[in-house]
Amino acid sequence: MTDRCVIALDVMGGDHGAAVVIPAALDVLQRSPEVSLILVGDEAMIRNALGEAAASQRIAIRHASEKVEMHEAPSKALRGKKDSSMRVAIDLVKEGAADACVSAGNTGALMAIAKFVLKTIPGIDRPAIIAPVPALKGHTHVLDLGANVDCTAEHLCQFAVMGYELVRALEGKESPSVGLLNIGEEEIKGNEQVKRAAKLIADSHINFIGYVEGNDIYTGDVDIVVTDGFVGNVALKTSEGLAKMILQLIRQSFTRNPLAKLVGLLARPVLQPFRERIDPRHYNGASLVGLRGIVVKSHGNADRIAFAKAIETARQEVEHAVLHRIGERVAEVFAAKESA
Amino acid sequence: MTDRCVIALDVMGGDHGAAVVIPAALDVLQRSPEVSLILVGDEAMIRNALGEAAASQRIAIRHASEKVEMHEAPSKALRGKKDSSMRVAIDLVKEGAADACVSAGNTGALMAIAKFVLKTIPGIDRPAIIAPVPALKGHTHVLDLGANVDCTAEHLCQFAVMGYELVRALEGKESPSVGLLNIGEEEIKGNEQVKRAAKLIADSHINFIGYVEGNDIYTGDVDIVVTDGFVGNVALKTSEGLAKMILQLIRQSFTRNPLAKLVGLLARPVLQPFRERIDPRHYNGASLVGLRGIVVKSHGNADRIAFAKAIETARQEVEHAVLHRIGERVAEVFAAKESA
Repeated sequence: MTDRCVIALDVMGGDHGAAVVIPAALDVLQRSPEVSLILVGDEAMIRNALGEAAASQRIAIRHASEKVEMHEAPSKALRGKKDSSMRVAIDLVKEGAADACVSAGNTGALMAIAKFVLKTIPGIDRPAIIAPVPALKGHTHVLDLGANVDCTAEHLCQFAVMGYELVRALEGKESPSVGLLNIGEEEIKGNEQVKRAAKLIADSHINFIGYVEGNDIYTGDVDIVVTDGFVGNVALKTSEGLAKMILQLIRQSFTRNPLAKLVGLLARPVLQPFRERIDPRHYNGASLVGLRGIVVKSHGNADRIAFAKAIETARQEVEHAVLHRIGERVAEVFAAKESA
Repeated sequence: MTDRCVIALDVMGGDHGAAVVIPAALDVLQRSPEVSLILVGDEAMIRNALGEAAASQRIAIRHASEKVEMHEAPSKALRGKKDSSMRVAIDLVKEGAADACVSAGNTGALMAIAKFVLKTIPGIDRPAIIAPVPALKGHTHVLDLGANVDCTAEHLCQFAVMGYELVRALEGKESPSVGLLNIGEEEIKGNEQVKRAAKLIADSHINFIGYVEGNDIYTGDVDIVVTDGFVGNVALKTSEGLAKMILQLIRQSFTRNPLAKLVGLLARPVLQPFRERIDPRHYNGASLVGLRGIVVKSHGNADRIAFAKAIETARQEVEHAVLHRIGERVAEVFAAKESA
């Protein structure tokens, strides 16, 4: 537990910018008395959007004159926009003025700038993106979700160690289980890199349960699923597409004719908890782990509820000293490996 | 259109063997008058299970003394069980006694034996596994679903050409669209092998629409999605896990209390078409493409309806001369490439 928690928000990022970030920020301030926020972006616009709330002791505004566009090349955003709201928010973390930052901006740019400004922690070659997905029992954290397309076995092992410690810290589980994503066909049982990664992870003194398959992500029987960013991203996007299709087919079923509509009205409250359970807004907020600072990525089209959830993820990481704990764990595991 | 269609069935394969294969076989014979079946397995058992149906002119029984176990190593099945029902069914295709074979047995063994016995067609290095999945509009064919974990760009291009021609033949579409599975992050836009594959496929004179992402599998906006077997298998299994979770959560919602149960009873018939639409039994039957023979793999735990669907897939491939058409297309594309 820390007693202060300052979070910098990239107000200009995402599809909706201030229209979503500012209401979400105000919601968080109301709910979490220990949180202060630095709103980064066009000062006049922010001040205007805040209205009376601008007077709050727990809100600071930091002007930034530029904005990273959603489809801008990361290298261009990194080199060409030193005063973007995204860059300034990350700089605030680097300087120690903020404990964490949250952005709904372009993932590639966020990763590139965060890596450049904050650097990776010792023992970690590449940061990874981790996020929870709903499972039949609780939820499952999956990494990497798209930061790294070509991973070595060593990278996968680093991801496993970071995911393990992040979930330990956030969820208070003594020893969460870690699975390595693989495919089950006998003759092929994984490619070479996955086989080597399994050996490395087994040596890392974490609760490694071995290979898991795609369907295990949704059972909740494993806490952390490790894979490379290409596969993780495909699994995530495929899931999004399938969930969308299923919900749309259900909606169609309940609107096919007047009788179906009536049944749909009755079913709506019954299905409400189910909708809540799989509502992606409640899972918004992916963490960039492996950096020397806490950076949380919100979905680009997040609404107020979803963006507030991403801020909450950052708050929890600060509260549970995730950064410090991952650093210690990585140092311990990889020092032990080197001396072994 | 061919006027005869003989399909060999591996009666011993799958979780249920004859208990599923024989009723499914009888269903198919009733529905499809041009089909004859060769039932391969323990002759006495099959004769017994068939009862009076054994007298049908359209049923032949071929004894096989061994059985490939579901978790048997493919190499062991290939070398050690020359008289397995799976092997004999594939041998029948090789000899020309059958036009196609269907097995619910171990995928790895089926692929290994089929490759060894039938060989690949000229221009194809490796066979792939292709199957349809339901989409919001119609369905989408995805390959490779797990036969090849480490694919080169050339392999992906071969998969694209085979998938294109298979869907053209089966669905009668003049020019179905082919997408290459990738991830959308700007900085990383695919790994090297995917980028190279995109160039090769673009040169293949098929309707290549470029990169697609995981969610596009379920929109139905693309007819064929090409990826390597590791990613394809993860996407498939992840989808299975998610669909299972969603259906279970819906079931839980409708059993939470007496009122919910009542609404559930009313909703059941309304949701029936939705259930049908995503029922995996209707999508059972993955094709091993790239071989000099038609081999269809049924899900191991397929029931009677699902296994009949797999036989139907084989029947359609025979009817539409898929093998011949893929061979011609591959020869054409890759000959053109060599001379270019």
